Amino acid sequence: MEIDTTHSPHAHLKTIPLKNVSVRDGFWSGRQATNHDIGLKHAYRKLEESGNFNNLKLAAGSGVGEYHEPPFMDSDIYKWLEAVSYELVNSPDPELENMVNDAIDLLAAAQQENGYLNSYFQVVKPEKKWQELAMGHELYCAGHLFEAAVAHHRATGKTVLLDIACRFADHIDAAFGPGKRDAVPGHPEIELALVELSRETGEQRYLKLAGFFIDQRGRGKMIGATPFDAGYHQDRVLVREAEIVEGHAVRQLYLLAGVADVYLETGEKALLEVAKRLWRDMTARKMYLTAGFGARHYGESFGEAYELPSDTAYAETCAAIANIMWNWRMLAITGEARYADLIESSLYNGFLSGISLDGQRYFYVNPLSSQGGIERSEWYGCACCPPNVMRQIALLGHYIATTRENGLQIHQYIASDIAADLGHSNPVKVRLETSYPWEGKGQLVIEETDESPWELALRIPPWCDEASVQIGDKVIDVSTNAGSYAKFKRTWKPGDMAQLHLQIRPRFIKPNPRVDAIRSTLAIAYGPLVYCFEGIDQPEGVSLSDVRLRPSISPKAIWREDLLGRVMEIKAQGAVENMSSWEDMLYRTLSPASPSYQDLELTATPYYAWANRVPGTMRVWIPCI
Amino acid sequence: MEIDTTHSPHAHLKTIPLKNVSVRDGFWSGRQATNHDIGLKHAYRKLEESGNFNNLKLAAGSGVGEYHEPPFMDSDIYKWLEAVSYELVNSPDPELENMVNDAIDLLAAAQQENGYLNSYFQVVKPEKKWQELAMGHELYCAGHLFEAAVAHHRATGKTVLLDIACRFADHIDAAFGPGKRDAVPGHPEIELALVELSRETGEQRYLKLAGFFIDQRGRGKMIGATPFDAGYHQDRVLVREAEIVEGHAVRQLYLLAGVADVYLETGEKALLEVAKRLWRDMTARKMYLTAGFGARHYGESFGEAYELPSDTAYAETCAAIANIMWNWRMLAITGEARYADLIESSLYNGFLSGISLDGQRYFYVNPLSSQGGIERSEWYGCACCPPNVMRQIALLGHYIATTRENGLQIHQYIASDIAADLGHSNPVKVRLETSYPWEGKGQLVIEETDESPWELALRIPPWCDEASVQIGDKVIDVSTNAGSYAKFKRTWKPGDMAQLHLQIRPRFIKPNPRVDAIRSTLAIAYGPLVYCFEGIDQPEGVSLSDVRLRPSISPKAIWREDLLGRVMEIKAQGAVENMSSWEDMLYRTLSPASPSYQDLELTATPYYAWANRVPGTMRVWIPCI
Repeated sequence: MEIDTTHSPHAHLKTIPLKNVSVRDGFWSGRQATNHDIGLKHAYRKLEESGNFNNLKLAAGSGVGEYHEPPFMDSDIYKWLEAVSYELVNSPDPELENMVNDAIDLLAAAQQENGYLNSYFQVVKPEKKWQELAMGHELYCAGHLFEAAVAHHRATGKTVLLDIACRFADHIDAAFGPGKRDAVPGHPEIELALVELSRETGEQRYLKLAGFFIDQRGRGKMIGATPFDAGYHQDRVLVREAEIVEGHAVRQLYLLAGVADVYLETGEKALLEVAKRLWRDMTARKMYLTAGFGARHYGESFGEAYELPSDTAYAETCAAIANIMWNWRMLAITGEARYADLIESSLYNGFLSGISLDGQRYFYVNPLSSQGGIERSEWYGCACCPPNVMRQIALLGHYIATTRENGLQIHQYIASDIAADLGHSNPVKVRLETSYPWEGKGQLVIEETDESPWELALRIPPWCDEASVQIGDKVIDVSTNAGSYAKFKRTWKPGDMAQLHLQIRPRFIKPNPRVDAIRSTLAIAYGPLVYCFEGIDQPEGVSLSDVRLRPSISPKAIWREDLLGRVMEIKAQGAVENMSSWEDMLYRTLSPASPSYQDLELTATPYYAWANRVPGTMRVWIPCI
Repeated sequence: MEIDTTHSPHAHLKTIPLKNVSVRDGFWSGRQATNHDIGLKHAYRKLEESGNFNNLKLAAGSGVGEYHEPPFMDSDIYKWLEAVSYELVNSPDPELENMVNDAIDLLAAAQQENGYLNSYFQVVKPEKKWQELAMGHELYCAGHLFEAAVAHHRATGKTVLLDIACRFADHIDAAFGPGKRDAVPGHPEIELALVELSRETGEQRYLKLAGFFIDQRGRGKMIGATPFDAGYHQDRVLVREAEIVEGHAVRQLYLLAGVADVYLETGEKALLEVAKRLWRDMTARKMYLTAGFGARHYGESFGEAYELPSDTAYAETCAAIANIMWNWRMLAITGEARYADLIESSLYNGFLSGISLDGQRYFYVNPLSSQGGIERSEWYGCACCPPNVMRQIALLGHYIATTRENGLQIHQYIASDIAADLGHSNPVKVRLETSYPWEGKGQLVIEETDESPWELALRIPPWCDEASVQIGDKVIDVSTNAGSYAKFKRTWKPGDMAQLHLQIRPRFIKPNPRVDAIRSTLAIAYGPLVYCFEGIDQPEGVSLSDVRLRPSISPKAIWREDLLGRVMEIKAQGAVENMSSWEDMLYRTLSPASPSYQDLELTATPYYAWANRVPGTMRVWIPCI
C-alpha cells in the first residue's frame, strides 16, 4: 500500500516515507488511535477465532481441525500484518510487535522448501496449485504477502518477512513468464505488490513479472473455473486496449494501481493512456458521489454508464480503498490535483463510511439510501474489508504530502508534522495545523529549513469558490486555483507561516441528468464531506421516502459537540409530500392535479457517520421541488 | 396451467374448458399459429439437442453419453408436453401427437417401479433422492409432470401420462405428509399441480398433500444446500403470516397460485387473506408498469418496496406467466375485475415481450430500458422460459371468459368463439369479434341460446374513461364501470349483439414519487399496451439518454401496417437536452443556470415489440420537462 516513488524514473512527485510524517490531533488522529488500540488487537483475535491462523498451522503441520474457507483467508492475515507494520512506525507497541512476530513465525513454518506459501492449496488442494487461477486467489494472496513484507521491512528493518516474500516471489517468477507458463491472475493485486517489492529489493525480475501479468490479460488464457464472465476478471480485452472500467470493482482498481505502478518504473505511454482513459470513464460515468465504486451486488461490479442506483449500490469499502491506491499512483505520475481531490473524497466518504465511529464495526457495502435494517458487523465471513480499513487508516500520513524538485506539495489537510527531504542538507520540517474538514482554516508552520528557497504547493479543492493564503502580512486570493495547486516559492525561515483560508459552506449538489436513479434530486455537501439524511433526525412521523428539498433556500451549518462524535450538522428547508392520493397505487394516468406539500426543516449529517445510532432509514439524494 | 373450477366449492366463477373456446383471427391467433407450426416443433429439436430427452433415456437405461444439467431439465419437457396438449385441443396435428407419444413412451420407460421419476436424481445422484429439496427441483419437476398429465388427459382422453403422474404422486404422498417426512419444496410448483391433479382425478390425498407442503414453510425445515436465504425460498415465515412478497419472483408467484388453488377447494380464510395481502404488497410496491416482476438479477428476486430500476430490472418472462396463473385463480375466487386487469397487462406487456415477433426467439429478462446490445435467444441453458411461453400462448383461450349462475363473463377481448355451459339444456354459443387492442370496438354476437334469460358481464378496463355498450338500438354509457364489469341480463336471441366501444387514446402514465428509478418521468400507454421508445425510431443523432417529453401536448396514434407486424405507433412532442455543460461530469454544485433544449418529435412503439429490429437502445420511462 505504501509506495516509494523517490527513485521511480517516471514519477512527477516523490512520496515521503511514512516514518517522516506524524498525524497529529485532529479529525483523523482519534481514528488512528482506535485502530491501534482496539482495531488491530481485535482483528488478531478474529484471525484466531475465524481459523485464519489455524489454516497456516495446518499448512505447517501443527494445526488441528478443519480448514476454514474462503480460499483467500491468508490475505486477511497479510493485510493485518501490513496495517500493524504501519502502526509500529506511527506508534511502537510491544504487544502488537509480539503478535506480528508470532504471525511471521507461523508463515515461516508454513512456507514450503521451494518457497511456495498458500495455506489453502497446501492443505485443501495440493494437487491443484496454479490450476485454479480464476477464482483460487493464489497470486492475490501472494501479492498481499509482498505488500506486508515491504511494510514490515520498512517498519522494523528486519528481513524475516521480506525473505519469506522474496522466496515465494522467486518461486512464482520461476514458474511464470515469457518462455515459462502463462497466467492471468483471477484477482489482480500481485502486480502492484511485485512492483513495490521490486522497489524495496531492487530486484528487476519482480517488476518484469508484474508487467507480464498485465500483458497476459484479454487473450483467453485464464484457467480454472469461474461463475463470472471475462469482463468481471478484466480479461475481456487487452489491458492497453481497454476503453471502460468493468467487472468486479476491486479487481479493476487493483489492476489499474498495478498498471500505474509499472508505468512509474517503465514510462510506457500506452499504460498511462489506458489508465487515464479508464479514470475518465469511471469518474464521468460510474462513480457514486461518495467516491464509492461498484453499482451492482451481482459480481460486486461496475454497472453500465450512469447506472448508479442509491439503494442497491454495492460501493464496497475495499473498492474505495483500491481507488485511493490507484489515485495515489496517478497523482505521483502526473502531479494533477484531480487525483488528490478524488483521494480526499474517498477518504471522507466512501472509505470512512466503512467503519463505525467506535472503530469496532464495519460495512462491506455502502449504499446511498436505505429503507432501514442495515447494520455494521464486527467481522465478515469474507473479511477482506476490515483489515483493509486498518491498513488504510494506519497509512493515512502517507497521503498528506509529496516532494518534487525543491518543492513540498500538500495534498490532504490532515493535522501533521512532516519532515521532507528537499535535497537540502537537512530535511525541511513543517507542521500542518487545521480543523479541517469542519473549518477551512489551517496553517502550515515552517519549523526547520535552511536558506535555500523552495516552493510550497497547497491543493485548493475544486468546490472552493473563496480561498486565500496569508503569508506574513500578505493575503493572496487563490480562488482561481480551485481544482489545482496554489504555489509559493520563496526563502522560508523557521517560524514562517502560510495561513490558508478555504471558505466552507453547505452546498447543493446536482447529478448529471443521465443518472436515472437520482433524477430531480439534490444532495448536500460541506467541504469534502457528502451529507445524508437519516430518518432519526427528521421531524417525527415523517418518512424519508416522501421528503423534498427546497433548493431556493440556502442550508445552514450548525456545530454539534454532542452528536456523532462532534460533527457539523446541516439544516435545510424542505417539505413532505402528501401521498394520500397515491395509496396502494404505483402508476396512474397523468392528471393536472398538483401534489400538495407541508413545509418542514430537514437535518443532514455526514454520510460517513450514518448507521451509528439505530439501523434506520437514510438517503443521500433528496428529490427537490 | 389450465384449471377447472367448475366443481370447486369456493369458486365465484367457473372456468370454461379450453376445448370450448376457439381463438379466432386477431391479435393473438397468428401468435398461436406460429407457436403451433414453429415454436413447438423447434422446441422438440431443442429438447433433443440440449440433452433433455437423452437424460430420460439415461434414466431408462437406453441413453448414451453424459447427463446434461441443470437438474431440472425434465421440467422443460413437461412444460412442452403441456403446451402441445393444449395445442392438440386448439388444432389437432399428427406430427405433434407423434412427438408427444414418443416423449410419453420415454417417460414410461424411465419411471421406476416404485413410481419415482426424475432423471437427474436417477442418473446423477441416486443416493440423494429427496435430500436436496432446497435446490434439487425434484418436487418442482414432479409438479410440471402433473400439470402436463392433466392437460394431456383433457386433450386426448388417454390416461397413459396421467397414470405415470399418479404413480409418482402416490409415491410422493407415501413419502411426505403428517406422520411421514417433512418437506419444504425449494421451488414451489407442485402445490398448484397437485390441486389440479386432485381436480382431474378426484383424489383428495393430492389436495391434502398440496396443503401440507404449504403448511411446512417458515419452520426452518428446508433441507439441502442453497446459496440463498430463507426469503428467497419463501421459507422465512409461515405462509399464513407472510406480509410481503419476497425472494425469487417465480417461486413466490407459483406458491401464491398454489395457495389460491387450495383455497378454491378448502375455503380456508387465512389462505385467501394472505393471498390478498401479498397481492396488495406486490401491486402497490413491487410491480413494473409492464406487469413484470422481480427487480433484482441477484436471486431473480423481488426488491424492497419501490425498488423498481428500469435498466437492471429482471422481470423474468416466467414470472409474468406465474402472475397470470395466480391472478386467474384470484379472479375465479373473487370475480373482481382487478385480477383480470392485471392478467391483461401481463399478457400484452411483461409476458409478450418474452417472445420475438417471429415467434422464434425469447427473452428471459425483460428490462424497461437498455443502453443497447440486448438480444433475444433461440433457447437458454436454463430453458425455463421458452416452453413456459409456449404453454401460455397455447392456453390463451382459457382466459377469455367464465361462467357463473346463469351468467357469462368476458374478461379478455380476444377474438374467439365460446361455448359456455350456463346450465341450460344446450351450451350458449357466442362469437367475440374485436380488433382490440388497436381499436376499442368489439361485438359479442349471440349465436346459440335458448329462451332462458342470462347475464352478460363485460370487463371495462380501469384506464377507459369513455365506454359504451349498444344492444339493439340502445346505447348504454358504461364509463362508470371502468375497473369493473358492465352487466346486462336479458333474454337473448340468436343474432343479438352487444356492441362495445372502449375509447382508446394514447395516455401518459405517471409513477408513484417513491419509485426513485423513474422519478420525474412519464411513460405512454395505449389501451392495455405499455409503449417504449427505441433509439432506432428517434431523429438521427439523438440519444435516448437525453430526450425529454412535453406532457402538455397530447400524443397522437398512427396506424402502421408496415411496422413491427402491424402496430399503432405513437408520436409525442419532446425535446433533447443539450448536455455539453455536463461533459465528463457526474455531479456539480447546483447553479441557477437552466438546461437548454431543442424540440423534436418522439416515436413510441409497443413495449412487447421491442428488440425485433436492431439490438439498440430502449426506454419505457422518459423524463419530462
